[in-house]
Amino acid sequence: MEMIKGGVTAAKGFEAASTAAGIKYKDRTDMALVYSQVPCEAAGTFTTNVVKAAPVKWDRQVVDSGKKCQAVIVNSGIANACTGAEGFGYCKDTAEAAAKYLGVDADGVLIGSTGVIGKQMPIDKLVAGIEVLASKKNASIESGTEAAMAIKTTDTFHKELAVTIEVGGKTVTIGGMAKGSGMIHPNMCTMLAFITTDAAITKEALQKALSEDVVDTYNMISVDGDTSTNDTAILLANGLAENPVIEYGTPEYEEFKAALHVIDEYLAKKIAGDGEGATALFEVKVVGAENVAAAKMLAKSIACSNLTKTAIAGHDANWGRIVCAMGYSGAQFDPEKVDLFFESKAGKIQIAEDGVALDFSEEKATEILSQPEVTAIADVKMGEAQATAWGCDLTHGYIEINADYRS
Amino acid sequence: MEMIKGGVTAAKGFEAASTAAGIKYKDRTDMALVYSQVPCEAAGTFTTNVVKAAPVKWDRQVVDSGKKCQAVIVNSGIANACTGAEGFGYCKDTAEAAAKYLGVDADGVLIGSTGVIGKQMPIDKLVAGIEVLASKKNASIESGTEAAMAIKTTDTFHKELAVTIEVGGKTVTIGGMAKGSGMIHPNMCTMLAFITTDAAITKEALQKALSEDVVDTYNMISVDGDTSTNDTAILLANGLAENPVIEYGTPEYEEFKAALHVIDEYLAKKIAGDGEGATALFEVKVVGAENVAAAKMLAKSIACSNLTKTAIAGHDANWGRIVCAMGYSGAQFDPEKVDLFFESKAGKIQIAEDGVALDFSEEKATEILSQPEVTAIADVKMGEAQATAWGCDLTHGYIEINADYRS
Repeated sequence: MEMIKGGVTAAKGFEAASTAAGIKYKDRTDMALVYSQVPCEAAGTFTTNVVKAAPVKWDRQVVDSGKKCQAVIVNSGIANACTGAEGFGYCKDTAEAAAKYLGVDADGVLIGSTGVIGKQMPIDKLVAGIEVLASKKNASIESGTEAAMAIKTTDTFHKELAVTIEVGGKTVTIGGMAKGSGMIHPNMCTMLAFITTDAAITKEALQKALSEDVVDTYNMISVDGDTSTNDTAILLANGLAENPVIEYGTPEYEEFKAALHVIDEYLAKKIAGDGEGATALFEVKVVGAENVAAAKMLAKSIACSNLTKTAIAGHDANWGRIVCAMGYSGAQFDPEKVDLFFESKAGKIQIAEDGVALDFSEEKATEILSQPEVTAIADVKMGEAQATAWGCDLTHGYIEINADYRS
Repeated sequence: MEMIKGGVTAAKGFEAASTAAGIKYKDRTDMALVYSQVPCEAAGTFTTNVVKAAPVKWDRQVVDSGKKCQAVIVNSGIANACTGAEGFGYCKDTAEAAAKYLGVDADGVLIGSTGVIGKQMPIDKLVAGIEVLASKKNASIESGTEAAMAIKTTDTFHKELAVTIEVGGKTVTIGGMAKGSGMIHPNMCTMLAFITTDAAITKEALQKALSEDVVDTYNMISVDGDTSTNDTAILLANGLAENPVIEYGTPEYEEFKAALHVIDEYLAKKIAGDGEGATALFEVKVVGAENVAAAKMLAKSIACSNLTKTAIAGHDANWGRIVCAMGYSGAQFDPEKVDLFFESKAGKIQIAEDGVALDFSEEKATEILSQPEVTAIADVKMGEAQATAWGCDLTHGYIEINADYRS
C-alpha cells in the first residue's frame, strides 16, 4: 500500500469541481461535484437518526436500487433536513439538473448536504451552481482538493487522502474526502465522506467493505455526542483500474478493505481532531476487555464525556473523570482492576493502577497532555479485546461557534 | 400543603451543623451534619454508575440493613471515589467518630461525599470536623441553611425547601437540601440530596415514596451528561410528628408522596438551573407521546444535547437541533408530525408544525429565549403521555470551571 497525493480525483476516471453558489456563505465555495467518466457501483452508509435529511432518504433509495451512479452533488450551508416534502422535491430537482448538465441518469445522482437544519434550499442557486460545476469539472488533483474545501462548514481545514494497492497486477487507487466539525457522533458513518476508487469490485463487496469499516472508524468518533440528521458515507467504484473484479470474502477483498480502512481511519481522525473549537485530538484506547462490544462502549463513553473533554482542554490529568465515564458506559468491568495511562509524543505515564491513583508526576502528566494529539489508555484486565475511539477537547471555541450558529 | 421556611431542620427533632474542616477548600465550610434526636427510618437511592464511591457503598449497606439511622456526615471537596479499600475504611472511621461524638450507633451513620475523584480523604481533618459538628449541632433553621451551604462544590447558591401537610390531624413536615453543579446526569438520584421528615411512616413506604419520585425529579435533570460516582438521595423519617403511621398504598401515603415530590422537584430544578456555568434553566416538555418511557427518552435527549444547550446560551431558536436530538434519542416518533414551541415568562411561540418551520418572529423567539427559565415543548401527536426534563445552557462558564477543576 502506498500513500499518494490527492483525494476524490486520485483514482482513474474521476473528476471534480467546486463553485460559490451563495447558498448561505458569502465569500467562499459551497458546492462540489464528484463525477466519474463511467458509471460506478455505489455503496453507502447513512445516519441512524430517526430524523433523516432529504438527501439521506434520496441516497438510500439510489444505493438500494442497485442503479449505477456517476455523480455526487454536495452543498454546504443548508442541511435540507426537517424540510418535508418540499425538501425532498429539491433532491429530485437537483438530480434532474445534474442529469441535464452532465448527461447522466438522474436516478444515479447522489446528493450530500450539510449545514443548518430546518431551512429550505434556495433551489435556483443550487441549479445554477450545478451548471457551473458541470462546465468546470476536471480530473486534476487540485479540483479534488477544492471540492474537499467546498464541503466544509465550520471545519478549519479540508480532509482528503489517497492510497494505491496492487490487485491482480493492476494498480488500484482509493481516494476520499470528508467534512465534520459539529453535530458529530456518527452512528453509521460520519457527517459527509466521499470515497472514490477505480477498483473493479462487485456491488456486494463494495457495500460490505464500507459497512464493515465504518464501525471501526467513523462510528468511533465524537465531537459533541449529537448524531446528525445528515451523516453520509459514499463509496464509488468505477472499475477503470481494470483489475480482476474483487469478490467478497477473497484475499483481494481483504486487501481492498485494509486500504479503505486507511482512508476511513485517516478521515475519521481528522474529523475528530478538527471538532468545533478543538485544540487537541483525544484518542482513547481500551485494552484487555472481555469483548469488542464492551471495549467500544467504554472507549466511546470516555471520548464523549464533557468532563474528560474539558480536562483535556485544561491539560489536567483528572483521571477520576475517565473512570467515572467508564462506569456509566453500560459495559461491565471491575473498577478495582483498571490501569490508566496517558500517552502522547511527549511520553507515556501511568496514572492509576487497580483503580487507585499512583504517585505520578503532575508536571510530566501536564506535559504529555499539552500535545495536539493525546491518548488515554485504559486496561480493564478482563480479556484480549480492544477498541479505539477518537474525540477532541471541549473548549470555549465550541461554545462560541454554537451559541449563535444559525444567525 | 404549605411551604415553610427552612430545609433539613424544619421537621421536628432534626438538628444540623457545619464547619470548615479544611478538606480541600481554604476559606469556606466543607462539612455538614444532619442529626435526629431520635432514630429514623432511612430510605436511599444511589448512583447506577458501575464505579461507586466508598460512601455510596457504605450507605447502601446501612439502608439495606434496615438499621435505624440518626446522623448523616457530609463533606465537600473530595468524593472518596476510586479510593479502594483505604477509602472504604475511612467511611468506617467516619461512622465511628460520629458514633463517639454524637453517642449514636456507628452502623446507623450515613455518609455523603462530593468533590474530586481519586484522592484519599484526609481522615484526621474529617474526624476533627466531626467533633466540632457534634458540639455545634442545633435545631435552628439557620443551622440547616448553613449545612446546605457547606455541601456545595461549584454550586453558586444553596438549595433547600420545606413543606408541611396534615396527616391524621397532625402536622407533618418534610424538608430537604441538595447540591449539584457538575457531573450531573443522575441515574437513580442526584448528586447529593438529604430530606428529613418528622412523619411516622413505615420503612417500606418511605423507600417506595423516594424510589417512585426520583424517576420524575432527580433522574430527569442533566447538566453535562456525566452520571456521577457519588449520586445519593437520603430520606430520613423520625416519627416525631406523632401522626398515625403512614403505610404504603394508603391515601396518606399518596399525600406524603405528593409533598415529597414538591421538595424533590424543587431541588432537582434548582440543581439543573445552577449547573456549572449555567445562565438559564432549560425545561423540556414532551407531550402527546405514546407512553411515558418514550416521552422521557425524548425529553432527556433534548435537555442533554450540547447543541441545543449552546443554542439556549445564544438565545437562538435553532429548533432543528431539538428535532435532531429527538431523532437520536432511541424513541420512535414521526418527525413529520412534530409541533415545537418555546415558552418563558416573555410569552409562548410556535416554531414548527408537522416537522417543518413556521414563519415565526425571530425577534419574539429571541426575547422568549433570553429569560432565565426557558421551556421547549415538543408535541409528537401520538398519544397522551408526557414527561418533563430539566437541563441548563452550555456556556463559557462550564469550560472555565472544568478545564482546570482538579488543580
